[in-house]
Amino acid sequence: MSPVPSLKTPRTTVRRMPKRGSYDFDTVAAILDAGFLCHLGFVADGQPYVVPTAYGREERLIYVHGSAVSRTLGALAEGVPVCITVTHLDGLVLARSGFHSSMNYRSVMLLGRAEVVPADRKVHAMEVISEQILRGRWADLRPIKRKEVNATAVLQIPIEEASAKVRTGPPGDDEPDYALPIWAGVIPLTLKAGKPIPDPRLAADTPIPANVKRWRR
Amino acid sequence: MSPVPSLKTPRTTVRRMPKRGSYDFDTVAAILDAGFLCHLGFVADGQPYVVPTAYGREERLIYVHGSAVSRTLGALAEGVPVCITVTHLDGLVLARSGFHSSMNYRSVMLLGRAEVVPADRKVHAMEVISEQILRGRWADLRPIKRKEVNATAVLQIPIEEASAKVRTGPPGDDEPDYALPIWAGVIPLTLKAGKPIPDPRLAADTPIPANVKRWRR
Repeated sequence: MSPVPSLKTPRTTVRRMPKRGSYDFDTVAAILDAGFLCHLGFVADGQPYVVPTAYGREERLIYVHGSAVSRTLGALAEGVPVCITVTHLDGLVLARSGFHSSMNYRSVMLLGRAEVVPADRKVHAMEVISEQILRGRWADLRPIKRKEVNATAVLQIPIEEASAKVRTGPPGDDEPDYALPIWAGVIPLTLKAGKPIPDPRLAADTPIPANVKRWRR
Repeated sequence: MSPVPSLKTPRTTVRRMPKRGSYDFDTVAAILDAGFLCHLGFVADGQPYVVPTAYGREERLIYVHGSAVSRTLGALAEGVPVCITVTHLDGLVLARSGFHSSMNYRSVMLLGRAEVVPADRKVHAMEVISEQILRGRWADLRPIKRKEVNATAVLQIPIEEASAKVRTGPPGDDEPDYALPIWAGVIPLTLKAGKPIPDPRLAADTPIPANVKRWRR
């Protein structure tokens, strides 16, 4: 492995609470790998748009996909600047004052330009996105058809300019406030999977795969 | 109540899967009220940025807050166009093909310009954000200080141009695929609160309030 350059640039430098920021690839990659839904920002006619979308990470690339006739994907494929933000909300931080109340979270903000995934890697990139959502699913699916590949636009954004921002732990109150009789602490939050709901048209004897039964983040 | 105008404009019209889109205020407000964390998009030097931030809704306004010296809030206060997106991920939709696999979600995308909340409503707006995160917390907190109010920038964005997009229910597969022996259905997802973790410096006899113990979304 070659030495890993920092993802820090003036545009990705965390100014508010700088001690919460980091710029090393492994930290950024770990936060990206813990999720599968990003908020993708782009500009059209001077107006920003923020769209929730699935993604997959592979090495130094983020893949996103959508309909081949989507206006959004079409605009992105032209190489306009984008921002991809991934946020894991880990808890409500209840301080004794509103001012110090906060949230625990892990987030990544990544800047770059999208490009079309070359044809010879397109299906592979679709698999990467699918696997990021549910490991092992791709092999169980009905194989993808050529017309489905053609109807899908797949883009890649390099992981070159990004920041991670992380807050953990208890509230940090003003020293005199610790003596107040106010409950303080953290309500931990996690995205939890409930019991899988079979499709009403599923044959009753279809076994539920282990990766579906045990999905977790 | 006066008749409610639609929030639909050419810019907020849902093009992909138009049947999933709606534009009535009550649908949009219900999705906003179910959350407290948005992804706020804005443009600086042609580059979009997407920042996760807390919000509160009151009638036809969204409030957001931040440090008074934040570059982001400063830029927003000048009335640049913003996009506020709120996404609730409700489930993984596992179809028999990758092409029809999807997610269940409720999301709102709101376009507008931010303005500074007038001084006489500033503390009230901070209360609205706090209450959106944890109902009843504001009254339990140590009262806010003037210097804390001054150190906080509070902005409002009118709810005038927006769309809601919602997907629910089982996968919609290609008709022949229903006969395949592939498990299909939905893995429901929810943001779940764990057992509250008391601040290590909390006096042992401090009772835990009911709203903290029973927080849920």
